[in-house]
Amino acid sequence: MNVKDRIHKVRESSFRLASLPVQVRNDALEAVCRSLRAKAEAVFAANAIDLENAEKAELPAPIVSRLHFGDKKLADCVAGAQDLIAMEDPLFKTLLKRELDEDLVLTRKTCPIGVIGVIFESRPDALVQIACLCIKSGNGIILKGGSEAAKTNRILFDVIYQAGVEAGLPEHFAELLEDRSQIDELLGCDEDVDLLIPRGSNAFVQYIMSNSNIPVMGHADGICHVYADRAADPEMAVPIIIDSKTQYAAACNAAETLLVHRDAAEAILPALARAAGDEIEWRVEEEALRLMEGEPATEEDFRTEYLDQILSVKIVDSLEEAIDHINRYGSHHTDCIITENDETAEKFMALVDSAGVYRNCSTRFADGFRYGFGAEVGISTGKLHARGPVGLEGLVTYKYTLEGKGQIVADYASGKSSFHFRDL
Amino acid sequence: MNVKDRIHKVRESSFRLASLPVQVRNDALEAVCRSLRAKAEAVFAANAIDLENAEKAELPAPIVSRLHFGDKKLADCVAGAQDLIAMEDPLFKTLLKRELDEDLVLTRKTCPIGVIGVIFESRPDALVQIACLCIKSGNGIILKGGSEAAKTNRILFDVIYQAGVEAGLPEHFAELLEDRSQIDELLGCDEDVDLLIPRGSNAFVQYIMSNSNIPVMGHADGICHVYADRAADPEMAVPIIIDSKTQYAAACNAAETLLVHRDAAEAILPALARAAGDEIEWRVEEEALRLMEGEPATEEDFRTEYLDQILSVKIVDSLEEAIDHINRYGSHHTDCIITENDETAEKFMALVDSAGVYRNCSTRFADGFRYGFGAEVGISTGKLHARGPVGLEGLVTYKYTLEGKGQIVADYASGKSSFHFRDL
Repeated sequence: MNVKDRIHKVRESSFRLASLPVQVRNDALEAVCRSLRAKAEAVFAANAIDLENAEKAELPAPIVSRLHFGDKKLADCVAGAQDLIAMEDPLFKTLLKRELDEDLVLTRKTCPIGVIGVIFESRPDALVQIACLCIKSGNGIILKGGSEAAKTNRILFDVIYQAGVEAGLPEHFAELLEDRSQIDELLGCDEDVDLLIPRGSNAFVQYIMSNSNIPVMGHADGICHVYADRAADPEMAVPIIIDSKTQYAAACNAAETLLVHRDAAEAILPALARAAGDEIEWRVEEEALRLMEGEPATEEDFRTEYLDQILSVKIVDSLEEAIDHINRYGSHHTDCIITENDETAEKFMALVDSAGVYRNCSTRFADGFRYGFGAEVGISTGKLHARGPVGLEGLVTYKYTLEGKGQIVADYASGKSSFHFRDL
Repeated sequence: MNVKDRIHKVRESSFRLASLPVQVRNDALEAVCRSLRAKAEAVFAANAIDLENAEKAELPAPIVSRLHFGDKKLADCVAGAQDLIAMEDPLFKTLLKRELDEDLVLTRKTCPIGVIGVIFESRPDALVQIACLCIKSGNGIILKGGSEAAKTNRILFDVIYQAGVEAGLPEHFAELLEDRSQIDELLGCDEDVDLLIPRGSNAFVQYIMSNSNIPVMGHADGICHVYADRAADPEMAVPIIIDSKTQYAAACNAAETLLVHRDAAEAILPALARAAGDEIEWRVEEEALRLMEGEPATEEDFRTEYLDQILSVKIVDSLEEAIDHINRYGSHHTDCIITENDETAEKFMALVDSAGVYRNCSTRFADGFRYGFGAEVGISTGKLHARGPVGLEGLVTYKYTLEGKGQIVADYASGKSSFHFRDL
């Protein structure tokens, strides 16, 4: 079967998937856990081949490390699935129930989005996590993982698919694409795929957005800022800035630019440089160079997601200048103000146009687990549907039902009948 | 100023707009109402010129009728704005408040989407309605109306803009585009426009979706179905079918296809044909031709939104066949089952993948006013963000705030601190 037909099968399957009671979906997750444990040795063997190939191909160490799927990762995946089983069913929740007229009742109830396509990076555990999120939320799923994890992805997918079908999920509830060329076919399936979640480089996400009519959820960039206000406590500012940059520099919620109010620059910048030592490489705008060492920053620096231990630094004259800079150069992800002044903080949080606006804490907190959402599909910098860290809730939509006893609109247009909205 | 710069000014203005208290937004709406009444004669004079040009250009009567903006339309617009003033503020609502750890509090609060571009048809009242919805929800707005209403749109826009700014809205909170060529410039402004709402023909909406990276909300098609089940009450079925087709055939929620269960066909089709008389033109699939007259239906008919008093008819063998037909040929807008059987109804409503799934009432009820939402931006057949009739609520998103006292992630990673999620 070609990719288009395989994806269409998932679409057809998704209608039945959408109507399954939570017990069946939870049973499927239990079956996945059992099967993952039972077939652990075969999974590890497949992973060993991927690792061997990666080393032969001399892939960079961080990729090889993400590729590794051993006891610990398997245990994490099973624990994640167990958390999902324990979570409340996101489906069939009544969001609204309203009598429009006698015997004419409108309800709005949550339901799955339908079919979700996820294109993810080299971590095979992402496949398990995403598949489990989709099973719990009743969505059909198209998975495309990194080619360096091909063997591991294939066996993980087979284990999950078989366990799911045996536990009562409809056939074709999931598909695994294994060839990079199939991504373009996926992008053309806008009749059968409701949502794409690409996880990868900025250029890759932009490519997806420009080459598909399917809505995309995710973030292309993570240019996050810390703004140390004139009313910042320097002793609080220094560790927050260092943590925001260095706690995991390759993450999308790591800070890329530090803005410092002119009145606070002297108290913060030299102390920051001392505290960071060699840990951070600096790109420093002209004025700030008087207070610390570093390479001169260009405008391009303020548009750059370093994904590395590099931080650009700029002095600003006012809160307004900081806000303007963030809204202009940022990626609407997560931005933090450090200030003891409540009014200033409130203004910053109202005017900065980002999914997360923080005060006096590290930008690295922007994460589904840290927000208590459980497993996360990704972080969205778009403003529609879901914003910020997206968990189960981002994988559901709603539909309206209207139940009548023969009512027709002509009677309401003529005045013979009339509405009397009453929430039930 | 060119279009790109004008739109960027709206973006800049939108940050301030987003932070205005509801009192200022309501005052602006009051000012708009006063000003519309005060300048009614000038508005009517501009409209007279548009009407004159429309007649010279021999535009079709329905367009001329939609173009007309007199006392009644003005009163409706003012009443609509008054309804909005009375509505609860959709902004700054706390959707979640959670303590992640001591003195580390996460909140999720509603906020405007930002800048919304609406491209609408010939009705000048749409301009007023949309502008008022955006003012209430704190969104910057780019309007592009039909060229046949150019003079009326211009004066309505000027009245609203001036009244808004005088009442305290920031300058550049709205822009009116007046040339069709400017639409393509608008489509390229994905850094400054957060959402496009095109209202128009299927081809037009498809064009927008294919030529912009800006998310689009709306419906391209309205192919709605009525399915008369084997357990349908024929006396209820006939008026529902006629109303769904004829009460306003050009609306997107009018039915285009009737599916009838084989066992109910004899009781319903001849009676339906008699009751409809000349009011409906039929496209009838072969088998049904034995029970009623009409042109033979082709597969193309089932993919056609007639926007006219034409209805296609098909006999099906089962509920499942009806559901498959609707999911395959429909546009996921609004579909209705007529049945006395609860189980059948439940299955239909679970498996039909549409924004509205109805039982025993006309598809024409799919409308924001009839749902009690007040003014409506449009009806969305997409599944993300908003589905079905979209009112104020569809024009807001949310942002997360996180307020701490210097917390850093390194302390949670090392185990020095730990989360204790507690909803407040």
